[in-house]
Formats: sequence, structure tokens, C-alpha cells
Amino acid sequence: MVLNLTNMSGEVTYKCPKCGFTTEANTWLIKCPRCGSPLNVNYDLRRPRELSRSELTRILPVKEPLSLGEGLTPLVRRGDYYFKLEYLNPTGSFKDRGWSLALSVLRNDVTVVEDSSGNAGLSLAAYSAVKGVRARIYVPKTAPEAKKRLMRLLGANVVEAATRADASSLAMSFTEGVYVGHSWNPFFIHGVKLIAYELALELGNIDNVVAPLGNGTLTLGLYLGFKEAEELKLIKDTPRIIAVEASGYEWAYSMLHNTPMGVKATLPDGIIVPQPPRLTQIIDAIRDTGGDVVVVNDQGVIEGLREGIRLGFIIEPTSAVVFKALKEVNLSGTTVVILTGSGLKLSNELYRLIYGE
Amino acid sequence: MVLNLTNMSGEVTYKCPKCGFTTEANTWLIKCPRCGSPLNVNYDLRRPRELSRSELTRILPVKEPLSLGEGLTPLVRRGDYYFKLEYLNPTGSFKDRGWSLALSVLRNDVTVVEDSSGNAGLSLAAYSAVKGVRARIYVPKTAPEAKKRLMRLLGANVVEAATRADASSLAMSFTEGVYVGHSWNPFFIHGVKLIAYELALELGNIDNVVAPLGNGTLTLGLYLGFKEAEELKLIKDTPRIIAVEASGYEWAYSMLHNTPMGVKATLPDGIIVPQPPRLTQIIDAIRDTGGDVVVVNDQGVIEGLREGIRLGFIIEPTSAVVFKALKEVNLSGTTVVILTGSGLKLSNELYRLIYGE
Repeated sequence: MVLNLTNMSGEVTYKCPKCGFTTEANTWLIKCPRCGSPLNVNYDLRRPRELSRSELTRILPVKEPLSLGEGLTPLVRRGDYYFKLEYLNPTGSFKDRGWSLALSVLRNDVTVVEDSSGNAGLSLAAYSAVKGVRARIYVPKTAPEAKKRLMRLLGANVVEAATRADASSLAMSFTEGVYVGHSWNPFFIHGVKLIAYELALELGNIDNVVAPLGNGTLTLGLYLGFKEAEELKLIKDTPRIIAVEASGYEWAYSMLHNTPMGVKATLPDGIIVPQPPRLTQIIDAIRDTGGDVVVVNDQGVIEGLREGIRLGFIIEPTSAVVFKALKEVNLSGTTVVILTGSGLKLSNELYRLIYGE
Repeated sequence: MVLNLTNMSGEVTYKCPKCGFTTEANTWLIKCPRCGSPLNVNYDLRRPRELSRSELTRILPVKEPLSLGEGLTPLVRRGDYYFKLEYLNPTGSFKDRGWSLALSVLRNDVTVVEDSSGNAGLSLAAYSAVKGVRARIYVPKTAPEAKKRLMRLLGANVVEAATRADASSLAMSFTEGVYVGHSWNPFFIHGVKLIAYELALELGNIDNVVAPLGNGTLTLGLYLGFKEAEELKLIKDTPRIIAVEASGYEWAYSMLHNTPMGVKATLPDGIIVPQPPRLTQIIDAIRDTGGDVVVVNDQGVIEGLREGIRLGFIIEPTSAVVFKALKEVNLSGTTVVILTGSGLKLSNELYRLIYGE
């Protein structure tokens, strides 16, 4: 089915980073029609004049993005680090930034189909409710109950699959809707990149940015945003990206360091993922910034949660992985830590993990 | 015990709105030493030059407020109304604005004592964790489990009382700490008033503002902020305040309209309160703006939740009461609706209320 895109502003093109295939972005494509790789989209950069909602919106290639109040999240300093509170986005995670743009370009007479470990699905459910499109979201049955409940509450059709990998293949093979999966979606990353613009506008030059790495939409969004900010001379250099993966799912780490996978973690559900479709891009991005990957196991998640809560941050287990990196990596200069997801929805789990009750 | 205040900037005075008692605010006073009424604090106004964190902070009478990233919440337009998303504050409610200021002026070698139906206590727990003070929080045993759990997670000593009124009297009679209760605290309201400044700076003139009313910290914060914004010529007039009370706890409504109390509501826990200490001030404020009070029962809460969720707002039952007012009151011109508390922490309850499962 050919699906025209709507609401776009300026000239936008798809480009396949693998085979070089390029075409105008006027219809929906989730992968390269020539080689099957995830696509990128490109368009002319616009330099924001200040840190404001209207200037940030102007960066995006749409006339008016669907908005639930995402973005412009607080930046808080604690000791040597800045923390970017992405968990204060409308549905409690940075995923809201991605859908705000990615759903804006789609018509609203379709069913959007997604696979998610939780947050991306919850976010899609909310933005779909606002846009008035039907959402069908495949989740692993192990996804936190609260996240599934919230998706249903927002009107999404939630389908449980045996594993995260099954959720993915079921979603991609469902033919009565449009697969918009965030790990493949080329627009999603451009929504996420505004985090980097906000940081560049607020702090100027940054030396390191620390963030969890699952399917890589955050890592690639940060990379893209900082690269653009560098091109626009908002900053001098793209910061080192220190990405944090879950043990047993350290796709980037094991490729970068040529090591076998560790013992499978169970707690950081948001980054427990099958091999990311954009793995090559992720590794290239981390390498290009002189960054690295840190691997965290369940014990590290619990320690991170304790540390985060002590600082007053009510975050979820997945988000707590960053604290391990702050201990393991030598970070000099200005360091920003991205806190990705809210713990409000998981108070029960947090309590059990921290107090063992 | 005489407790010196710290971290203040400029000259601040206590003033009793009832008996007129006035004194310099250099020690902690929770009530008028002459007549026992709740006190106000006054200081010279400062006109913010723009809508930014630093300019908003400059308005407050402290050198550096304790911050978890509160404030500058999103404003979203849906149909005829603007919604101010106070539920996206760091701990999921507008209470964060109050504690950010109210805890800043206290020393950190004390135990702060509070009574709360949930959100104010959760917020105090987080800000106390950051400041490094011990917090002792009395809650009714009916308070949502998730809120109690989160307070404990943040290190607060949570004490359960039989009722909301018992929580209050126990907190006020505990002698080994400093009672800072938000419904009495004169600094708290000045933190909350920044909502009005943000709205005035973003929208200019506003005709109506709709908000839940429990102990009145939000109503009084809005009133104070808009009055100041009017004095500073940021707006021409203070908007009408349309406050929404819970049936059976309609303290202001029954005084304004001389009616008996209705059937006791059970769902909007945040506004199920004994008679507010500042009731006279609340009624005067609503009258002065030409506003009114609307009363909501449990059925209205459920309908409001459905409406809010349909718009993509993940709010808690207490916050959903505002939708009843939008149906009942004739609102012309620019109307802002304050959404006070996050539903992320209560997904289970929300699901049960909406789907009856």
C-alpha cells in the first residue's frame, strides 16, 4: 500500500545509509526498498535563534507537530554532572519526542503498528489518542503490567507476544496497518535529536553525554542532533557518547570490543532488546565521537536506582543504568546524563528492588 | 524552639491577614503568634523580563532555591482551552513548586514534619532527600499505596493515621521536629504562584483559570501570582478563578452559597480534606476575581478521567475534577485549566475506574 505523507515542510528525502538509495520522502517507507536496511531522512538544517518551543519546532520538517507538551525538559546540576530529565516528558519517557514528529507526517485514517518493551508503546498510545488514529502495539508478555495497562487505558490495542523478538516480527508482518516501529522509523530519531539542540542551546560545549542504549533511538538522536548543532556552530564539537547496554544484550559493546555476551540482565526492561536494526549506525556514531559502551547487570541497576532516588530522581530501572557509567568511565569536562524514563509508574517494582520486599 | 531562616534575599515580613500582626521573617513561624491564624509573607515584587528559569527564580525571596527541575511546565491547547500540565513536575504534581521555595529557607539540621493526602508528602520527601533533611510525613491510611511507597522510597518516615484530620493534628503536635505543613506554610504559596507568572508571560491576558481546590495552596498561589502580575502590568486583570471541590468537602462552596455538604466523594483523594486553615482567604480570593466554585462527585471524577485520557493527559482522579467545571460553567474568552497530578503512579486505579475491572 502506498501511503502519502502529510503536514511536511520543506524538501525531505529518504537516504539509505547502507546502499545509498535516495528518493523524495512523499510516501511512507519503513525500510530501503532496494536493500531492506533502515532508512534515514534528510532535509535542510535551520538554526534555532533561542531555546524556546517555537524555535525548536521550527527545526523539524513538519508544518505543525502533534504535541502533548513534550520536550524542553529540565536540566538539573548535581555535583559534577548535569542531568537531563527526559522522564518528565508527557508519558514519562523521551519516546514522546520521537512520536510527536513521526506521527505528525502520517494520515489519520490508518492503524499504526508498533513493537515495544513498554515506553515507546505507551507514548505511541497517547499520541495516537490525540491524533485520533488506531494503534496496535505488540509487547513481550514480560513488559511491566503498568505500562500495558496505561497503553490500553489510552485506547491502544495491546497484543502480548512470548518475547521481545516475537513482538517485533509479529508487528512487522501484520498487514492490516502501517508498521511505524520506532527502532526502524527514520522520522522518530529527528524528534529525539531535539534533546541535543536543547543541551547545546542551554550549555554550549559539552564533553560527554551518558545515556542508556537499547534500540539506539536515543543514541542516534543525540548523535544526529549534536552533529547538526556542530554544523550550525551552536557547539564546537560533538560530545563523546557513553552508551550503557544491559548485560546479555550488549550488541554494541560486543561488536566494539569483540567479546561474548554476558549473563542476561532482567531488570532494565527498556534496553532488553534483540539485535537493534540500526546497530551499524549506532557503532559508527559512538566510534565517531570517541565514545564507548558500558555494560550493566541487574546488581548495577539496583545500585543505580539507589543512587538516583538519593538524588531525588524518581526514575525507572532502565534509566538507572547510567550511574554505573559515571563510576566506570573517566569523565572530564562537562558531562550530561540523560534520565530517560519515569519511575512513578513502577513504584511497586522500585520498592521491591530497593528494599527487597 | 526558635529556628533562624536561611538563604533569604531581600527584606521579607510575616503578616497575619486576620489580626494584622507584622514582623520581620528571620525565624520560622507557622502561625500568627498573636491570634493563631495562618500567616502570609510579603516582600518587594520583581518584574520578570522573560519566561525563563532564571527570571522566574529571581521573583522568589531566596538566594538559590532548592531545585529538582520544577516549573516551566508545558501549556497545551486543546479545542477552546489551554491546559497547564503541572502533573509533569518532578514528583508528578504542582506541590514541587511549593517545596522548592519553602524548604530552601529552612536549615538542614532539622526534621521537617508534614501532613498530606499524598502528593504534598511525596514532593516533600523528594525535596528533603535532595536537601538532606529528615522528613516525617503523616498520611491518612486511605492514601494511595503508590504515594506512600514512593515517599518511603525517598527516605521519608511515613506515619499512617486513621483520617486526614488525624494526620493533621498528629503532625502539628509532634514536638521533635519543625511542622512545615503546606496548608499553613506561608512560603509554599509563593512557590506555587509562579504558575500564574508563567501563564501571564506566555499568554498575556487570561479570562478564566480552572483548578481543583483542596487546602487551597493552588487557588491562593494562582490568586497571589495573578494579583502580582497585574500589579507588575504583565496582565490587565486577574482572571476569574473557577475552583473545583469534592462533594462532601465543599468548604468554600457551602460558605459561598450557604448550602449543606453533599454526599462524600471518595475518589479525588487530593481534595478530600478537613476544613482548610486558609478557608477565609480562599473565599475572599475567589470572590475578588468574580469566580465561583463547582462541586464534583465520584461519577464526575470518572467522567473527567475518561475525558482527560481521551485528550492524551495521563492524570490522577483528583486532577480530573476540572472537566466537570468546563461543562457547568459558562467560560468565555481565554481559559486555562490546571492539571495538577500525574496518573502514572496510579495506573491500576485508573484502569479499574475507567473499565471497572
